[in-house]
Amino acid sequence: MSEHDTLLALRDALRAFAAERDWERFHTPKNLAMALAGEAGEVIEHFQWLSADESANLPEERRAEVALELADVLLYLVRLADVLDIDLGEAAQRKLALNAVRYPADKARGRSDKYDKL
Amino acid sequence: MSEHDTLLALRDALRAFAAERDWERFHTPKNLAMALAGEAGEVIEHFQWLSADESANLPEERRAEVALELADVLLYLVRLADVLDIDLGEAAQRKLALNAVRYPADKARGRSDKYDKL
Amino acid sequence: MSEHDTLLALRDALRAFAAERDWERFHTPKNLAMALAGEAGEVIEHFQWLSADESANLPEERRAEVALELADVLLYLVRLADVLDIDLGEAAQRKLALNAVRYPADKARGRSDKYDKL
Amino acid sequence: MSEHDTLLALRDALRAFAAERDWERFHTPKNLAMALAGEAGEVIEHFQWLSADESANLPEERRAEVALELADVLLYLVRLADVLDIDLGEAAQRKLALNAVRYPADKARGRSDKYDKL
Repeated sequence: MSEHDTLLALRDALRAFAAERDWERFHTPKNLAMALAGEAGEVIEHFQWLSADESANLPEERRAEVALELADVLLYLVRLADVLDIDLGEAAQRKLALNAVRYPADKARGRSDKYDKL
Repeated sequence: MSEHDTLLALRDALRAFAAERDWERFHTPKNLAMALAGEAGEVIEHFQWLSADESANLPEERRAEVALELADVLLYLVRLADVLDIDLGEAAQRKLALNAVRYPADKARGRSDKYDKL
Repeated sequence: MSEHDTLLALRDALRAFAAERDWERFHTPKNLAMALAGEAGEVIEHFQWLSADESANLPEERRAEVALELADVLLYLVRLADVLDIDLGEAAQRKLALNAVRYPADKARGRSDKYDKL
Repeated sequence: MSEHDTLLALRDALRAFAAERDWERFHTPKNLAMALAGEAGEVIEHFQWLSADESANLPEERRAEVALELADVLLYLVRLADVLDIDLGEAAQRKLALNAVRYPADKARGRSDKYDKL
């Protein structure tokens, strides 16, 4: 990735993509939230029968398929944030800061039972 | 958002966050794919009983909650891509290019029945 | 549906189906929960671009596809409950009773904002 | 579970529950599909950080919570099938028959890579 792969650039590209196709009418937050969840479901289907180790050692072909599924999730996520006028980058920074307070490194170390978020 | 809100910067912040807490052991692709889907489910719950119009006009408090849910999705998505050694920004650019070919503006204009992707 | 379409009958059929294929090893609660979520994602993809009215008036071919997707959700749900030794029918009756207390008919009438559950 | 825990009985109970609260207006297939996916997301969140073994040995309190989440999935699933006029029990029997053809016991034995469905 480069300094040019900003969420801002993706947002603008998706905004233009939808406008050129007159798709804004379909891109309600409700519909985009459904599309986001649908794509997340496609991601999970790649991993459901794999062991933890297998999931970390995907055959190259499968890994390439997953890469495009993750891209789908990102594209819908950025588009959903845009139609809601949410600054996704700012929200992510804010959530990171909240998580740092919520899970102090010394308290959370190595304990999955102490957290349900990143 | 600024030019500094790159997926690369988020990836590095999350990598450090997990390392400081010794959470890499929990961050298998399988587990992170589940966390991603779980967060997408939380997003959808905000919209399930709303009309299309209501979803586009959220009360400010609800919109702020949704912003943090979208952030959660992004954080898990970036972290999942990282542990899979997938360049999420590159994959997104590739998917955008594929979609441009798949949905020519003149053919796809205004037709939801002609697509199932952005 | 008939009086014979019991969750119990489905549970037993799925138990035999997995045993005959030596699939119990794959049917951990974790894996089955992922499969359940993946199928729910397939259901949602059928509706994401439809209006409320369109969703209530599916073309027959689409409705037949959705029927099999709902069946997939049910099969994984029943199987997941079984491997967790959860009595799904009893849990459903209990949840119905809880919802009746949680959403008194006179208080909840016509108000989506007063509930997030059935 | 007993012979009385039929999908038919649940369907009727949910139909009455919605009617008494004037909730039919909210129970469009689109909305119920979202609610179903949202509940599936809640199920998955219970398992995302657990190992396969941990997921098969839930503490009793956690197992009781999961039971009610599975009930939520079933209730929305049965209600969604009803508003779509889909016979869920019949669809499940049909899907079981299709899976028996799709995954012959002798060919599918012990192979997760040969299937993506029950």
